[in-house]
Amino acid sequence: MRNSALLALALSCAALSHPAAAQFAKSEDAVRYRQSAMFIQSQHLGRLAAMANGRVPFDAAAAVANAEVIALIAKLPWSGFGPGTEGGKARPDIWKESARFKELGDRLIGDSDKLVAAAKAGNLDALKAAVSATADTCKTCHDSFRSR
Amino acid sequence: MRNSALLALALSCAALSHPAAAQFAKSEDAVRYRQSAMFIQSQHLGRLAAMANGRVPFDAAAAVANAEVIALIAKLPWSGFGPGTEGGKARPDIWKESARFKELGDRLIGDSDKLVAAAKAGNLDALKAAVSATADTCKTCHDSFRSR
Repeated sequence: MRNSALLALALSCAALSHPAAAQFAKSEDAVRYRQSAMFIQSQHLGRLAAMANGRVPFDAAAAVANAEVIALIAKLPWSGFGPGTEGGKARPDIWKESARFKELGDRLIGDSDKLVAAAKAGNLDALKAAVSATADTCKTCHDSFRSR
Repeated sequence: MRNSALLALALSCAALSHPAAAQFAKSEDAVRYRQSAMFIQSQHLGRLAAMANGRVPFDAAAAVANAEVIALIAKLPWSGFGPGTEGGKARPDIWKESARFKELGDRLIGDSDKLVAAAKAGNLDALKAAVSATADTCKTCHDSFRSR
């Protein structure tokens, strides 16, 4: 009993000393959370890219479904980059240039709204433009902030 | 060039022989996709459980945000369990008892709608009931279909 009480105290102190990571029980969870969100996004963006590139036929309903998943998931990864959550492929620059990192995260959220709008309009040209803009945002951020 | 053409042919044959996995370039992607979705869900359900258990104060706006993520993500993992995607902690029973597996997946989707309704109503008792029902669905499915 005494050990478990000490453990609980230690965990709560760890949470207090990393306020932005407090949503996660441990920093590994934050890393896994952001990686999970990024992976799901990449899968759904790949499906939209396949339509945009003509590799698969344009399917408006599927495009809307994929875009809506991206639009929701695009909001998620950022809470997983709190202080004390270094690890994975995240470069330390994320925490040194946090304003630029946030700007790119916000850009992705804006891009994903355009994916939804283009898909809902059933406009393949608009979808191509939105997929291209989103992919550019991914690449810009990864080039600066993800290690190879 | 000849090698890459053969590789492309092989990939397209692999996709054709596993139709339900065709959304994923390879079965490892399907495994990672479903695990990613399950992990994100578990994190957000944990935050609702913390409110339901009184470990953190009830925050209606945060409860709605968490419940809405769960409601969207609850629809995702199932496409990652197509034929030919065995692996991870998935038990073979998933493909042998596919009707029961689907029933539990649908139950989770229904549970997550109740989480959203309870959170939007700002009703902590309804949220407690919905969190408890959701956790029971998770456990029931994991007991049958997830290896330890």
